Amino acid sequence: MIDFRTQPDQYKHWKLSFDGPVATLTMDVDENGGLVDGYELKLNSYDLGVDIELYDITQRLRFEHPEVGCVMMTSGKDRVFCAGANIKMLGTSSHAWKVNFCKFTNETRNGIEDASEISDQKYLCVINGVAAGGGYELALAADHIMLVDDGASSVSLPEVPLLAVLPGTGGLTRVVDKRHVRRDHADYFCTLAEGIRGKRAVDWKLVDEVVPRSKLEETAAARARELAAATNRPTDARGIELTPLDIDFSGDAVKYGTLDVEIDRDNYVATVTLKAPDEAPSADLAAIHDQGAAYWPLAFARDLDNFIIHMRTNEPEISTWVFKSVGDGANVAAADRALMDNAGDWLVREIIHYLKRTLKRLDVSSRSVITLVEPGSAFSGTFFEFVLAADRSYMLDGNLEGSNLPPATIRLTGMNFGHLPMCNGLSRMETRFLDESSRVEDAKAETGNDLDAEAAEELGLVTFIPDDIDWDDEVRIAIEERASFSTDALTGMEASLRFAGPETLETKIFGRLSAWQNWIFQRPNAVGDEGALKLYGTGQKANFNKERV
Amino acid sequence: MIDFRTQPDQYKHWKLSFDGPVATLTMDVDENGGLVDGYELKLNSYDLGVDIELYDITQRLRFEHPEVGCVMMTSGKDRVFCAGANIKMLGTSSHAWKVNFCKFTNETRNGIEDASEISDQKYLCVINGVAAGGGYELALAADHIMLVDDGASSVSLPEVPLLAVLPGTGGLTRVVDKRHVRRDHADYFCTLAEGIRGKRAVDWKLVDEVVPRSKLEETAAARARELAAATNRPTDARGIELTPLDIDFSGDAVKYGTLDVEIDRDNYVATVTLKAPDEAPSADLAAIHDQGAAYWPLAFARDLDNFIIHMRTNEPEISTWVFKSVGDGANVAAADRALMDNAGDWLVREIIHYLKRTLKRLDVSSRSVITLVEPGSAFSGTFFEFVLAADRSYMLDGNLEGSNLPPATIRLTGMNFGHLPMCNGLSRMETRFLDESSRVEDAKAETGNDLDAEAAEELGLVTFIPDDIDWDDEVRIAIEERASFSTDALTGMEASLRFAGPETLETKIFGRLSAWQNWIFQRPNAVGDEGALKLYGTGQKANFNKERV
Repeated sequence: MIDFRTQPDQYKHWKLSFDGPVATLTMDVDENGGLVDGYELKLNSYDLGVDIELYDITQRLRFEHPEVGCVMMTSGKDRVFCAGANIKMLGTSSHAWKVNFCKFTNETRNGIEDASEISDQKYLCVINGVAAGGGYELALAADHIMLVDDGASSVSLPEVPLLAVLPGTGGLTRVVDKRHVRRDHADYFCTLAEGIRGKRAVDWKLVDEVVPRSKLEETAAARARELAAATNRPTDARGIELTPLDIDFSGDAVKYGTLDVEIDRDNYVATVTLKAPDEAPSADLAAIHDQGAAYWPLAFARDLDNFIIHMRTNEPEISTWVFKSVGDGANVAAADRALMDNAGDWLVREIIHYLKRTLKRLDVSSRSVITLVEPGSAFSGTFFEFVLAADRSYMLDGNLEGSNLPPATIRLTGMNFGHLPMCNGLSRMETRFLDESSRVEDAKAETGNDLDAEAAEELGLVTFIPDDIDWDDEVRIAIEERASFSTDALTGMEASLRFAGPETLETKIFGRLSAWQNWIFQRPNAVGDEGALKLYGTGQKANFNKERV
Repeated sequence: MIDFRTQPDQYKHWKLSFDGPVATLTMDVDENGGLVDGYELKLNSYDLGVDIELYDITQRLRFEHPEVGCVMMTSGKDRVFCAGANIKMLGTSSHAWKVNFCKFTNETRNGIEDASEISDQKYLCVINGVAAGGGYELALAADHIMLVDDGASSVSLPEVPLLAVLPGTGGLTRVVDKRHVRRDHADYFCTLAEGIRGKRAVDWKLVDEVVPRSKLEETAAARARELAAATNRPTDARGIELTPLDIDFSGDAVKYGTLDVEIDRDNYVATVTLKAPDEAPSADLAAIHDQGAAYWPLAFARDLDNFIIHMRTNEPEISTWVFKSVGDGANVAAADRALMDNAGDWLVREIIHYLKRTLKRLDVSSRSVITLVEPGSAFSGTFFEFVLAADRSYMLDGNLEGSNLPPATIRLTGMNFGHLPMCNGLSRMETRFLDESSRVEDAKAETGNDLDAEAAEELGLVTFIPDDIDWDDEVRIAIEERASFSTDALTGMEASLRFAGPETLETKIFGRLSAWQNWIFQRPNAVGDEGALKLYGTGQKANFNKERV
């Protein structure tokens, strides 16, 4: 089992130091510190373990270091910035591992861009040696790329010529769609194993500046201070500590503070019960800061985040996630209110955006999502996003026989109308009613009201509303049927249906680019016995089928 | 070899009749008329041969029938509209065949939507029986979908539950992105093998109306007349005949009237020489109509179109297409002028949009495109689009030793600035300079001027400008190197780099959806010995790997 929890005193691969508003993040991968046996992490190449640490760091920089306005990424190795994802690791991994690894690393890089845009924590990448493949892709996530001009250091995406695969962490998309490198330049660059250095790298927009080695340290420091000075990060705030998550992994049950998971292996399904807080979370800013990681909305975001990445990696056969909720939805609505009322505070801003990013993770997870709204549930506001994020939802209409619980209701809050956008830039509500803004307005007009099943259906907010007589059968059939389908077909179908509307860098990366990469990760030219990814480093030459598909 | 040329008296699968402004297109597939042996085209299922005819029909409707404002598609079979792509055909086809088949069928459906938008020739689909999979996807291309309400006829996308693949011709994308079916409804619909009929099909926006069988004929006819009455198609114009294309296929040389192709199998490359017209094509509208299919711009569009679909299907190993041109570029520029000056005429409108759609075909072809601008070439206006469409271009700077030809020049015309948009809705020029509209303006300011290599490079219009000394080596290395790469990696890379900027229904279909489909078409759950596509119809149950990727 891969445990995604880590903390600074456990880091093997990264060093973090602070100088006022500038943090320096130094990649110095431990060759022998691979997550799995069978490969050495030479030349600052990385595996999932290296990236788990990087993700933890980016989170702590946001929450524990409000004073940091610029993160300067660089390498601790001589003449090497980063050689990208470890090829031996990729060559020996299963298809599912490769795809899941790319997804997680992509999310972290998207998170870096989100930190820049939303938290105003800027990233400066100082490429002080060779940056190849994933190494350059890491740089592409930064706001400013500085390359040492020493006649040797270069940036490159050598995946196509050397490995017969695509750059797997957004490289192609970011080159043309973020940095607006001309497509013919991009074509040349992406087929040139040795990469591009010096002035041409700047002329072609591959990097923002080149600096002689003798001036690198000084110029980088100045640039970092400039970037930090221009942000709106608070200078006098105290961070909150992201204390270790308390998770009870016991076989088929996983217990978090704010949610429980039960796995039913016969049906390839995990039932996730979201637990509303026992009381309304404080709306007092001082109290929120005092509670820190214990503040319910943040605790919930962290639990949910860990749940998603844990299940994706460690439970690949659990193909359907069923979401339920329990408790008092009014307390979830109160949490939403507290967040929205204090949205100008740096910490609250981080909490809202952590919720947003975690829900985006749910959208791009290759798992079917079914949400069940039953009597006793708490689908208000942020919890209601799980109804909107579901591929399908069922809400019980009326009472459950033998139960004295009142009929289920749902409640919308302001959080459902713009605070938690999807990758496509729209709220889940807007995506749901793509050509019918009036239906979004109709729903908005019901904000704060408890809506029963018929009202929810009338507003188009839930898929089906069976009554007590039909409930068990309908839900059981939906879950069993899902388990009978090809998981691959479901992945492709869900990825195609979930993101109607506009496309963004993120949807392009998770849609177009990842889909092509996954295809190539299946093709003999890459992964067959004579494929380039398989043979890399053996000295043998790949044998390609020449047919164009 | 598959010959894409056909004509009405050769149709096996479709019947076309005319009643003033309404054409009725009846699908009546000949079970025994499959393009390849080994399957029967039961229940109006289709293969590439059926679709070659459909494409020919849609072209003739545009050019030969200016009076047709509405095309009513329906089925000639009892109780069956269309069962979609033939499963046995798919199950026994190679991966490359499946992918190429889907691409061509997608292009025809996009062309139907283009006919509606641009030619104002509307499509009404009258579903008079079961419309499953590709059958419903054909309907989705129409402007208006009418479904008979007889308790049996339904629309469905049963690919996921029955075949473990995706609907391959845009179905998922059109359901959520064109018809704006709610994603949870779409999820339910796409997992329901038997599909949806009657009122629910309308409520969920899957069709536009349902009509009892007794009223079907009458209602359909009325709707067709309504649609026809609202178009701007000319009522008194005479169509021009799309006369048979004269093509000389002789082994490694293919000769069209307006372009020549030479295949070099050692380097997996085809060199295509575009031939400028010998004189300036007429700008006189009456003369244009008189010349009809012989009018050079139309003849060129037809030749290029056939070249692309011929090579994609019949020469899958020819991975690189090198474009050259010969003749007087001023004559190409004159053709552009003639088209733009007469753009209000229905026939000229069709010619321009045919050029546009054919160049779009080039963009989505999984072939590397390299364009060479040499002395004696004619890269003006429409021909210059081949420089912009290239993954990479080379322009010879100066004279060629031993030749008295003047140095190469290129010339921009108005056609390069909006008349020939890509799938992303932008001109190739705008896509090239995505964040730099000033560079588009700089190029526009040079419209009509002959630009030498240095000027072209300065404007960012060509990739490299080697001189006589370096030319042969640089070009040779580029072509040989391309041939050394994995064709799959090139396909994924090119598809990712070519379409920067906004996304549209078309880019989503060719990017996101096709990429996922291609992936699934490689996965054991679909195409393995125990995969659903392989076993369909045998009575054996597919055996799925349950892992989620």
